[in-house]
Amino acid sequence: MSSASAQASTASALTVPVPLGERAYDILVGRGLIGTVGSRIAALGARAAAIVTDEHVGPLYAQAFSDALQTHGLRTSVITLAPGEATKSYASLERVCDAVLEAKIERGDLVIALGGGVIGDLAGFAAAVVRRGVRFVQVPTTLLAQVDSSVGGKTGINSRHGKNLVGAFHQPSLVLADTALLDTLPLREMRAGYAEVVKYGLIDDARFFAWCERNWRGIFEGGMERDEAVAQSCRAKAAVVVRDEHETGDRALLNLGHTFGHALEKITAYDSARLVHGEGVAIGLNLAFRFSAALGLCPISDAERIEAHLTSVGLPTRLSHVPGGCGTVDELLDAMAQDKKVKGGSLTFILAKGIGQSFIAPGIEAGKVRTFLMSEINASSS
Amino acid sequence: MSSASAQASTASALTVPVPLGERAYDILVGRGLIGTVGSRIAALGARAAAIVTDEHVGPLYAQAFSDALQTHGLRTSVITLAPGEATKSYASLERVCDAVLEAKIERGDLVIALGGGVIGDLAGFAAAVVRRGVRFVQVPTTLLAQVDSSVGGKTGINSRHGKNLVGAFHQPSLVLADTALLDTLPLREMRAGYAEVVKYGLIDDARFFAWCERNWRGIFEGGMERDEAVAQSCRAKAAVVVRDEHETGDRALLNLGHTFGHALEKITAYDSARLVHGEGVAIGLNLAFRFSAALGLCPISDAERIEAHLTSVGLPTRLSHVPGGCGTVDELLDAMAQDKKVKGGSLTFILAKGIGQSFIAPGIEAGKVRTFLMSEINASSS
Repeated sequence: MSSASAQASTASALTVPVPLGERAYDILVGRGLIGTVGSRIAALGARAAAIVTDEHVGPLYAQAFSDALQTHGLRTSVITLAPGEATKSYASLERVCDAVLEAKIERGDLVIALGGGVIGDLAGFAAAVVRRGVRFVQVPTTLLAQVDSSVGGKTGINSRHGKNLVGAFHQPSLVLADTALLDTLPLREMRAGYAEVVKYGLIDDARFFAWCERNWRGIFEGGMERDEAVAQSCRAKAAVVVRDEHETGDRALLNLGHTFGHALEKITAYDSARLVHGEGVAIGLNLAFRFSAALGLCPISDAERIEAHLTSVGLPTRLSHVPGGCGTVDELLDAMAQDKKVKGGSLTFILAKGIGQSFIAPGIEAGKVRTFLMSEINASSS
Repeated sequence: MSSASAQASTASALTVPVPLGERAYDILVGRGLIGTVGSRIAALGARAAAIVTDEHVGPLYAQAFSDALQTHGLRTSVITLAPGEATKSYASLERVCDAVLEAKIERGDLVIALGGGVIGDLAGFAAAVVRRGVRFVQVPTTLLAQVDSSVGGKTGINSRHGKNLVGAFHQPSLVLADTALLDTLPLREMRAGYAEVVKYGLIDDARFFAWCERNWRGIFEGGMERDEAVAQSCRAKAAVVVRDEHETGDRALLNLGHTFGHALEKITAYDSARLVHGEGVAIGLNLAFRFSAALGLCPISDAERIEAHLTSVGLPTRLSHVPGGCGTVDELLDAMAQDKKVKGGSLTFILAKGIGQSFIAPGIEAGKVRTFLMSEINASSS
């Protein structure tokens, strides 16, 4: 492994710093980075690492990963969980925490998340609470995790009241995003992650959205564009997180598309056969712009341009695209009302004046949302 | 309630500020403070409060408490748990989090802990993780909670690997310590809390220890000395916490007596019929000074003075005082090794050069601890 290591560590890793004071860390993005985990993680100075992974990713990478850490003197253990959103549960949290304690991980040691967003959120939450906080490294293995959940320190599990309603802010010590791991990612998951990439353009960077329109094929095919898109997404997210680490203000912009998206995920019971997070976000992004247009805030042509791009990539964009149906208007509103972005009883949306011009819109009346959703549902049934 | 409120709020509440920057808060100490909860908590500006309590305290105070908050415009709900250490479990955490979400507590709202240390630790942890953090008020109803667990932001639950091994640092927004609530506290619990009061003198304040020797009867009887002792203990703890909020250094001094104490609690299976936390601490304090003396660090006369005082108050001081036995030396060492103060495999103790002169002693060899424990056990069996 050492020569591969040496080769990979001289390879072109892009570094995205996340300057959060004493919680500052780097995100490294590059093809083949996983070959360098041993030396990079050993440099953090821990004595032991508990690797948390799932039954899809574990068999592919956990053994080599563990061996590389052991070669660099770390004591390792591997905790393997069932894949899927249902793993973000209280029961899994207990299981991971107990396994991390069983592995005698101390405050200076590491919990390493080797997997997608579910593993990252769960392992990160366990790291946040075991001994009231041990260090944490993210090795995201999906596009969604590389551009979203591995950046920003949000960790958590789902409650019967909604997604991510129980958790902690816990920044990682290091994120290693190996873009080669995405070569074997199913196309559907690749597309779902891509919805979050597009989101960063839509929030506040119209040039990046235009770049995505021109370069999305390179991202899917694994060219340099993929590394650039991942790094640019991490930069965009890091910039927002640094301004507002604990989501008391600007950070809510990252929820563009998510109020609708989370509601759809809830209505489809987090059943990934019907809808995965990124698909909910794709529909949510389009709805956020269509809602903005319906409120007279944004040209409808911007919404149409977004829909055209998402469609060309193969993503769903409408309520009618939800397999098995999107529920009634009342069900959608109920699902949104329990979302954690509710403040003081009124709904907060992220709306836009155009591509790259999104803003936080608190106090949106439920009646306006209802009217919009009725028209969307009627349009699709007619 | 309003005239009683007005009277109580002009009564002599002692204010102990905890200056933790944007997490700064006040601890109020006084007789009859609970009569003023409505106005004091309403001043925090929340719309709703979830009151977490137990089956001992709830029937006494929860209804009046809830009414007082409602009078001041807050929406309230009450969550009542079984009393006892077994409640600090993953299952209770899930129950409290779900109940808090059910009550639609938002980020600006409150979780209020109305009870002893178990309720404070559990409710505080739930407040730390619901929506990744909602605000939190402590109304401690035992002496132990008033002088220890309600100050400093440590929250958590127990794991099968040991006590408090899963949790978060989450500072309250306000602590209301009503010393009149202690009038009905069982004597055994009063004594147990008093062990923590004595601890503050032993750590770094020989004058306070001497004051305790002279004034302990007033504390037990509910005189002004009780308010003074609670406030002084909070001041002492706050000073340490402000220096080291996340226990990376000095804060470990607060663990004086706790390495032995936690081990005894673990060996007695957290069975409060055999040993409560403060009793473990009392034995632990005496052992910490006897161990310091055995290592030649501290005059044995200081250890004897401490033992005499703890004994006069009615607290246990020796391994032989543990009902049902303290286990073998190996069992004690094992229990200490899983304690979270272990760093890099060696044992960290808090030792002392004398009363009020404690210090952090990392890297204590297990062999020295073994020899000491052997001599203690032999002394008691001879």
